[in-house]
Amino acid sequence: MTASFKRIVLASRPTGPVTPDNFRLETAPVPEPAEGQVLVRVHYLSLDPYMKGRMIESKSYAQPHPIGETMIGGTVGIVEKSRNPQFQDGDAVVGVLGWQEYGLSDGRGIRKVDTSRIPMSAWLGVLGMPGVTAWYGLNRICEPKAGETVLVSAASGAVGSVVGQLAKAAGCRAVGIAGGPEKCAYVVNELGFDACIDHRQHGDLKSMAKAIRSAAPNGVDCLFENVGGVCLDGALACMNAFGRIALCGLIAGYDGEEIPIHNTRMLLVMRLKLQGFIVGEHMDAWPLALKELGAGVAAGRIKYRETIAEGLAAAPEAFIGMLRGRNFGKQLVKLA
Amino acid sequence: MTASFKRIVLASRPTGPVTPDNFRLETAPVPEPAEGQVLVRVHYLSLDPYMKGRMIESKSYAQPHPIGETMIGGTVGIVEKSRNPQFQDGDAVVGVLGWQEYGLSDGRGIRKVDTSRIPMSAWLGVLGMPGVTAWYGLNRICEPKAGETVLVSAASGAVGSVVGQLAKAAGCRAVGIAGGPEKCAYVVNELGFDACIDHRQHGDLKSMAKAIRSAAPNGVDCLFENVGGVCLDGALACMNAFGRIALCGLIAGYDGEEIPIHNTRMLLVMRLKLQGFIVGEHMDAWPLALKELGAGVAAGRIKYRETIAEGLAAAPEAFIGMLRGRNFGKQLVKLA
Repeated sequence: MTASFKRIVLASRPTGPVTPDNFRLETAPVPEPAEGQVLVRVHYLSLDPYMKGRMIESKSYAQPHPIGETMIGGTVGIVEKSRNPQFQDGDAVVGVLGWQEYGLSDGRGIRKVDTSRIPMSAWLGVLGMPGVTAWYGLNRICEPKAGETVLVSAASGAVGSVVGQLAKAAGCRAVGIAGGPEKCAYVVNELGFDACIDHRQHGDLKSMAKAIRSAAPNGVDCLFENVGGVCLDGALACMNAFGRIALCGLIAGYDGEEIPIHNTRMLLVMRLKLQGFIVGEHMDAWPLALKELGAGVAAGRIKYRETIAEGLAAAPEAFIGMLRGRNFGKQLVKLA
Repeated sequence: MTASFKRIVLASRPTGPVTPDNFRLETAPVPEPAEGQVLVRVHYLSLDPYMKGRMIESKSYAQPHPIGETMIGGTVGIVEKSRNPQFQDGDAVVGVLGWQEYGLSDGRGIRKVDTSRIPMSAWLGVLGMPGVTAWYGLNRICEPKAGETVLVSAASGAVGSVVGQLAKAAGCRAVGIAGGPEKCAYVVNELGFDACIDHRQHGDLKSMAKAIRSAAPNGVDCLFENVGGVCLDGALACMNAFGRIALCGLIAGYDGEEIPIHNTRMLLVMRLKLQGFIVGEHMDAWPLALKELGAGVAAGRIKYRETIAEGLAAAPEAFIGMLRGRNFGKQLVKLA
């Protein structure tokens, strides 16, 4: 056991795009767990778009992250020293221990996971917040029926890739939007979507709408929106009457730019339902979601892909890259 | 019985604002009802914003109105000659007979109404499509709980006035948005809203949001949106978590101008639900809605106001005025 460990704190708030100097790498002595606590060595850190929202000071669903505090983040790791009877040394646990190599927990925020059939890292992606987000938004908001068309943006990502695979399993036509030919090929050939649109080829609403219409000849019944902007407006132009939109993310606006909806009329004219959600507020759905997703992953029916940065010091650049869409699948940082 | 009657047909489609020359007044011989038909003398014609949507050729929930055909419109009148056993001469009936002094029906599109306790014209407003629209959007989409705040735009109008009164009856704080001090005074003093914002004093998002925040100090839980534009964006800035938005109309865009939503992020950040609807697609709700609204009107608990134009020839100007907000309450045309 090392006597010290590394962590990354929020050094300053971004005013536009996130930059490396918004973060600071620190070294601290590895703490001793008190009675009731467990010390966890973090093996993987999850990098997710929501973190950008916490870094800035705007009206959001959460308090802004305090300056000087260790960045928030989902983690999976191994219990190194337990003084809590519910955990044993060697247990694999997921939690939200943040951007650091070691973390302490009183046991409330961590949960044991099975790594015999499932790789440890998958508990941060397809079987973590992104996977359950996909499951919840699709099943509880979009509620697709067999034969309907489901459109999902950021389709090669940790959330979108699961949305499309679940939609296919439900008997739907699955259409993705992704950035670049490589991601689009993966979405269709590996994940089994029926079609994928390269948004880099369609920079304006009309072009995007035309591409969606071509990929979804019967119109779009369900939209799982991770991006916003041109993707959302183009999709709105193609929605069928009584369509459902699960609003999961607006990554097009993560640098603070305006992301207006221009096709406002479609919401009324097509009698659409649009709903924003955060899966952490629907914990009742997690057991069923994890059961279904876990069975799919263990059986190889649900595929996923990861981009893994090596070492904590690489986390800021990996995070910035993810906000730019440079990752391919779930973005992780390997810490041990 | 006159040998001829007047009707107004769609002469041309508006490219921007509706103009009088989009309409043409015609004279035709009063028809004889065939076996199974009834001839109705129209007493009141309803003028409603949706008609603008039918006049133009854009993607909408309905086919564009054919050029040269009598304008569509809700009506109430008296059966003048019945050759249908379900109706008798003298029956008061509501229907959609259009912009004309006489109409024929095979009985399917018309419905007998009680004019002993309810004035005939009310069946086109508070007990017609506008009233049921208010009831449905509030009860089935917004689902307000006692103590919550309900915000409604076009609050002095046929729909908005009912929304606020139902919200008050449900134990909510009701805040209206209306155009001008006279309408605002009516909304508060006559209809019993807690507050009303004059949108003419708040032309931009920030000013509108500030006014709403002041009138709704606990935030907005339910938004009943009839207008769009600055009203909608200002309201979005003030929505509480898990707020519900019934999207009923976008009259701010009825001249074809863009009505983007700028506060897109709030939909996600506050986990809002927004739903567009057309009450004619929810006929199952009408009996309960009319029962509740009818009891309220008959008892004087639900108040309403009408602007009545005299004679069919006045209909185009009255319609154009309504789209500009010149009416005060339900806009009708008295034909007999």
